[in-house]
Amino acid sequence: MPDTIAHVKLTHGGALKILNAAIAKAEAMGVPQCIAVVDDGGDLLAFVRMDRAKFLSIESATRKAVTAASSRMPTGGLAPEIEVKLGLATDGRLTNLKGGVPIVVDGNVIGAIGVGSGTGDQDLECAKAGIAALAGAKAW
Amino acid sequence: MPDTIAHVKLTHGGALKILNAAIAKAEAMGVPQCIAVVDDGGDLLAFVRMDRAKFLSIESATRKAVTAASSRMPTGGLAPEIEVKLGLATDGRLTNLKGGVPIVVDGNVIGAIGVGSGTGDQDLECAKAGIAALAGAKAW
Amino acid sequence: MPDTIAHVKLTHGGALKILNAAIAKAEAMGVPQCIAVVDDGGDLLAFVRMDRAKFLSIESATRKAVTAASSRMPTGGLAPEIEVKLGLATDGRLTNLKGGVPIVVDGNVIGAIGVGSGTGDQDLECAKAGIAALAGAKAW
Amino acid sequence: MPDTIAHVKLTHGGALKILNAAIAKAEAMGVPQCIAVVDDGGDLLAFVRMDRAKFLSIESATRKAVTAASSRMPTGGLAPEIEVKLGLATDGRLTNLKGGVPIVVDGNVIGAIGVGSGTGDQDLECAKAGIAALAGAKAW
Repeated sequence: MPDTIAHVKLTHGGALKILNAAIAKAEAMGVPQCIAVVDDGGDLLAFVRMDRAKFLSIESATRKAVTAASSRMPTGGLAPEIEVKLGLATDGRLTNLKGGVPIVVDGNVIGAIGVGSGTGDQDLECAKAGIAALAGAKAW
Repeated sequence: MPDTIAHVKLTHGGALKILNAAIAKAEAMGVPQCIAVVDDGGDLLAFVRMDRAKFLSIESATRKAVTAASSRMPTGGLAPEIEVKLGLATDGRLTNLKGGVPIVVDGNVIGAIGVGSGTGDQDLECAKAGIAALAGAKAW
Repeated sequence: MPDTIAHVKLTHGGALKILNAAIAKAEAMGVPQCIAVVDDGGDLLAFVRMDRAKFLSIESATRKAVTAASSRMPTGGLAPEIEVKLGLATDGRLTNLKGGVPIVVDGNVIGAIGVGSGTGDQDLECAKAGIAALAGAKAW
Repeated sequence: MPDTIAHVKLTHGGALKILNAAIAKAEAMGVPQCIAVVDDGGDLLAFVRMDRAKFLSIESATRKAVTAASSRMPTGGLAPEIEVKLGLATDGRLTNLKGGVPIVVDGNVIGAIGVGSGTGDQDLECAKAGIAALAGAKAW
């Protein structure tokens, strides 16, 4: 069994590209958003809170990104009977709110984006648009 | 009534034996896991996060072990109407997620194992396999 | 005495302008940084963690910005005998580390920038360069 | 500027190899230890608390590893006038206690080990012995 394995990291340049694409989408939709991009360990890489976005979404948008990075799946798909338990067991870091999407390149999760301040569907649409700006990233 | 009573402690050697058996089971199942072994006071003895296991399960797997050590029962059996109240009243340390199992020798709880990153049933199966590696431990 | 007063808010466009100028400065200096821009209430507006910046600086850079927004002064000027007391009394949100600078327009604090991952002097230099990109902002 | 960069990840197999070498060293020294191995984002990969090691060192040993992973340097070298400020600004996650050492392969930090329960020098010696077990890792 190998001691190390090859991996790929998202640069801050790549993270800002995703952030800016998500901002453009939010502007086009007319829905101000909080937008967070994290690395594959859940640590913050880039963030913006747009004018008139909700300040409590600073935290929830970030946690959507953290959750998507950890689970390697878009947020929102957990069964109702388990989502609160998982939230409690992680001090609320794991959230089942829609709007978190992993950034996947060549089958590897290299980070995630989380968007919050609109409806769940608006948040998700904005998150997908952010990822679409990264060449080679999996489209959701 | 005596002032003190004899007790048995799990060594780190015993804890690692359990950990390694759980890793082997997780590999055989093809389900990467976070695996925590705690003592009878809920303090961490041994831990591993396998490749591709969810990083948010670091905390939830540990709390499953803590809960099992405290309650002296496998996790997951609480009534739905009480599980959230108990979670809130313990800052989330008590969890009703499946995958925590006490380590019992001669009727005494000497620690617990908690596993998380798969489904609840996968986590539980892996936890039981870990305990099975300890000679004399109660089989669940 | 009036019930309300006119105020000026930093937009996310302005915050990103500051962020990007600070990134350019950090690149020119060859010192990767965590850079946070907050509003006058200390809530995050924009953030970036550059490649190879320290991940623990995510939090400390943000707190430098929060401290500068609250005190309306660059961070780092507190007397040694009071800095720890103030840190303890604010759960560490108030920090006397260098690298936080308020964003002042027409005599009003409209936000702050915090930079961390280099030395205190490097952090401060990068923060000032960020603010310099905002037309009309006070130069420090 | 590229969106992604190649990187290397420490496997749990590699982390356990380091852990077991550190345990062997601690046994040879007759100093029971808490030993933590984290990845390059500071998330826990492997942990052991040896018999008779201090339970409060569970946390401090882990934070030594987190600090070394973030700063890319062994812990303990900060100036006295800055170490408390940095501790406060990171909720105590950044520590200047000796015993944390980054794991460096081909010039890249892929994680860190933190050891605690002995003196600082004993902790550091044990941490170095752990890393020495990983082929190709930088010797400190």
